[in-house]
Amino acid sequence: MSIPELLLKKHEDKRLRKGHLWVFSNEVDNKRSPLEQFAPGDLAVVKDHAGKALGAAYVNPNTLICARLLSRKANLKVGANFFKSRLATALTLRERLFDKPYYRLVFGESDGLPGLVIDRFGSVLSVQITTAGIEKHKEVLISCLIELLQPEAILLKNDNGQRQLENLSLEPEIVYGKVPEALIIEENKARFNISILAGQKTGWFYDHRDSRARLAALSRGLKVLDLFSYSGAWGIPAAMAGASEVTCVDSSESALAMAASSAELNGVGDILRLVRSDVFDFLRQAREQNEHYDIVVLDPPALIKRKKDFKAGYEAYRRLNHLALQVLERNGILVSASCSHHLSRANLHEILRSSARHIDRHLIFFADGGQGPDHPIHPAVMETDYLKTFFCSVSPSL
Amino acid sequence: MSIPELLLKKHEDKRLRKGHLWVFSNEVDNKRSPLEQFAPGDLAVVKDHAGKALGAAYVNPNTLICARLLSRKANLKVGANFFKSRLATALTLRERLFDKPYYRLVFGESDGLPGLVIDRFGSVLSVQITTAGIEKHKEVLISCLIELLQPEAILLKNDNGQRQLENLSLEPEIVYGKVPEALIIEENKARFNISILAGQKTGWFYDHRDSRARLAALSRGLKVLDLFSYSGAWGIPAAMAGASEVTCVDSSESALAMAASSAELNGVGDILRLVRSDVFDFLRQAREQNEHYDIVVLDPPALIKRKKDFKAGYEAYRRLNHLALQVLERNGILVSASCSHHLSRANLHEILRSSARHIDRHLIFFADGGQGPDHPIHPAVMETDYLKTFFCSVSPSL
Repeated sequence: MSIPELLLKKHEDKRLRKGHLWVFSNEVDNKRSPLEQFAPGDLAVVKDHAGKALGAAYVNPNTLICARLLSRKANLKVGANFFKSRLATALTLRERLFDKPYYRLVFGESDGLPGLVIDRFGSVLSVQITTAGIEKHKEVLISCLIELLQPEAILLKNDNGQRQLENLSLEPEIVYGKVPEALIIEENKARFNISILAGQKTGWFYDHRDSRARLAALSRGLKVLDLFSYSGAWGIPAAMAGASEVTCVDSSESALAMAASSAELNGVGDILRLVRSDVFDFLRQAREQNEHYDIVVLDPPALIKRKKDFKAGYEAYRRLNHLALQVLERNGILVSASCSHHLSRANLHEILRSSARHIDRHLIFFADGGQGPDHPIHPAVMETDYLKTFFCSVSPSL
Repeated sequence: MSIPELLLKKHEDKRLRKGHLWVFSNEVDNKRSPLEQFAPGDLAVVKDHAGKALGAAYVNPNTLICARLLSRKANLKVGANFFKSRLATALTLRERLFDKPYYRLVFGESDGLPGLVIDRFGSVLSVQITTAGIEKHKEVLISCLIELLQPEAILLKNDNGQRQLENLSLEPEIVYGKVPEALIIEENKARFNISILAGQKTGWFYDHRDSRARLAALSRGLKVLDLFSYSGAWGIPAAMAGASEVTCVDSSESALAMAASSAELNGVGDILRLVRSDVFDFLRQAREQNEHYDIVVLDPPALIKRKKDFKAGYEAYRRLNHLALQVLERNGILVSASCSHHLSRANLHEILRSSARHIDRHLIFFADGGQGPDHPIHPAVMETDYLKTFFCSVSPSL
C-alpha cells in the first residue's frame, strides 16, 4: 500500500527545508492533491512542487496547520518502532538531566513528536494528545510507554482547547492503572501535593524549574512576594532556602490551599503568608500602604492567548511590571516572567526597560531564565520557544 | 565652579532618554559646545538641543564615544561618595549571588560605572580602567576599594586595546599590596591556579560560570571534548562531576600547563587528556579517524573582533560548529559558545540550525546560557550583552 502524496505549491517547501515541521492549508496544491481526500490523522508523503519528497507527515484537512512532519524519510511507518525510537531519544536526554522521574518527557515538535506532550510524575504519566494524527495511534503509543517506563498509571489529559479544533473528545481518560486523587511530586528539592486530574494543563508546570532554583538560591534572609502563586512552586523552595517571609498572592482559594498543604509538607508552613486577592488590587494596595519586598516574583498566566488580544495583554503586562517595581525594596530583585508565546522576549525586555525609566530606577538583567531543559527549543520551530523570565536587580536611578 | 555643558544636536537625546549612557561625537552640537574645550576625562552636563539637562557625563574629545553618562543628575560630584555608592550597590547583588569572593564585582555600564571592570579573586582585585574619565579618578576609586573590601592587593590590568584609543598607558600597575605570581581561585566548586599578571584580560573569565556548572551536571560517565580549553574551566568541573574522560585541546602550551596543574589541584589529573593542537586540525583529524565524543564544548576566543571581520569570523564559527557536530556521538551534546559581540545570538542560532540540517541531524536547544549573573545586562545598553552559549542535544535526523 503506498502512502498518498501531499503536493505543495511552488516555493512553499522553504520552511520545511529549513527544518520546520508544519504545512499550512494554503500552501497545499489542492488541485493536484486535494486535502479533502485525506481523513484526519492520515499519513501523507509531503512533496515540493517539483515532486521531490520532503518527508512523511500526518494530515488533518480541517485545521489551519493541515500537516505536521513526523520524519524526513518518505517511507515512514508509524508503529511501535517509530514511537519507541522517539521516546528513547527523549528519555536519554531527560535521564542525563535529572536524577528522578519528575519532568516533561516529550515536548512535541522538539522531540520529533508533534501533537504530543508527556509529563512524568513519578510512576504516573500525564499525556496530552492535541492532534488527530497522534490520537489515531494512541493504543500503540500507550503500549510503548508501558514497555519503556513501567508506569503505574497513564492519564490522557484531554481538556485542551486545541483538541476541539481537531474535533477530538475533551473528556480525560485513564487508559492504564489507577490515577490517585492526590500525588506528591518533586522539584528543586521540594515536594508538592498536586492533583493531575483537577489541575491545569498536565497538572504541573515543570518549565520554570531552573528559574525557581535560581530564585531559591537568592532568597536567604529576604522578604519574598510571590504573585499569581498558584501551587507555590516559586515561594516554597524560596522559603526552604531561608527566605524570612514569603507572601503568596492568588485569586484562587484552591490554589492557595494547595500551596498551604505543600508548604506544610516541606516544613515551611510558618514562613508562607497566603493572600487571596486579585493581583492588581493587591499591588495597588501595597503601593498605597508603602509596603516593600526584597524580591517580587511576577509569573502571571498567559495574558495574551490569541494574537488579537495582544494590545490589551501587553498593557496588562506593562501595568503589572510597573506596579511590581513600585513595591520593591531599594536594591530589590524583580523576577518577571511571561509564558505567552505572543509576548516576545523583546516585548518583555522593552516593558522592563521603559517601566524602569518611567519611575526612574536603574534596572539590570542578571539572568535570563527561559524554559527548563526538559522543554527544549527546536531551532527551526520558534513556536516551541515560549517562556521568558528576566531576573532584574533594581536600584535607585544613577 | 559650574560644570561646563555639552549640548546635543536636535533629536540626539533619544538614545539617552531610553536609558543608554553613550554620546557619540557626531551627536554633539560642536558650534555651541565645542568638544575641543574639554580635556580627556572632564566632567560635563549633557543637555538636549533645547537646553534641558540629561545628566552628568565624563568626556573624551578624542574618541568616537565622546561622553559616557555617570548620572541622570546634572550636579554630580565624582568623588568618594559617588564611588562608594556605586560599589556598594554592585556588592549587594554579588553578595546575594555568591558565598565566596570570586566574581566580577563591577561590569561597566551595567553597574553605573562606564569604563570600569573589577574582578575579585579572593583578596586580590584586578581592575580594568578603559577610559580617561575613570583614570582621572583612580586614586579615589582605589581608596574606596580598600575601605570597602580590605583587599591584600590591587592590580590595574592596563593591557587593554581600548586604553590605547584613550591615550592611556598599557603598563600593568600594582597600586596596592603585593600581587602573588600564582593565585588560587574558586569557581563551581573547583579550584584553579591562575596568574593574573600573565593571564588574558583580568586573568580569568567568570562569565561562563553558570554554563560550566550546567555542563558538569551533565557529564557523569560521559566522554567530553573541551575545545579551546584555555585554563580547563569547563573540563575540570566536568571531570570532577564524573566524566569518564576529558580531552582538552588548545594551541597554547602554557594554557595546557595551567589546566594540568589545576586538574592536579582538584584530583582529576588522570581524567584529563591534554592535546596541544590547532582546533580545526584536531577536529578534521578526529572526523577522519571516526572519533566521537558524548559532549563537545566549543568555546572559542572572540573570532570577530571588529565589525569588518564579520564575514570571515562568521565562516570560522560555521566551520567549527559543523566539524564539532560531526565528531558527536549519537544523542550527543554540543555546547556552542561565542563571546563576540558582533556575532549575535540569532547568528549563532542560525549557524547551529543550518549546520544540523546540512549534515542531517535533529538538533534542539535545551538551554541557552548567557553570561553569568555577575555580568548583568543593561536593557538599554545592548553592548553589555555579548555572551551566547547554546546547549544542544543532537540525534539522528527525524
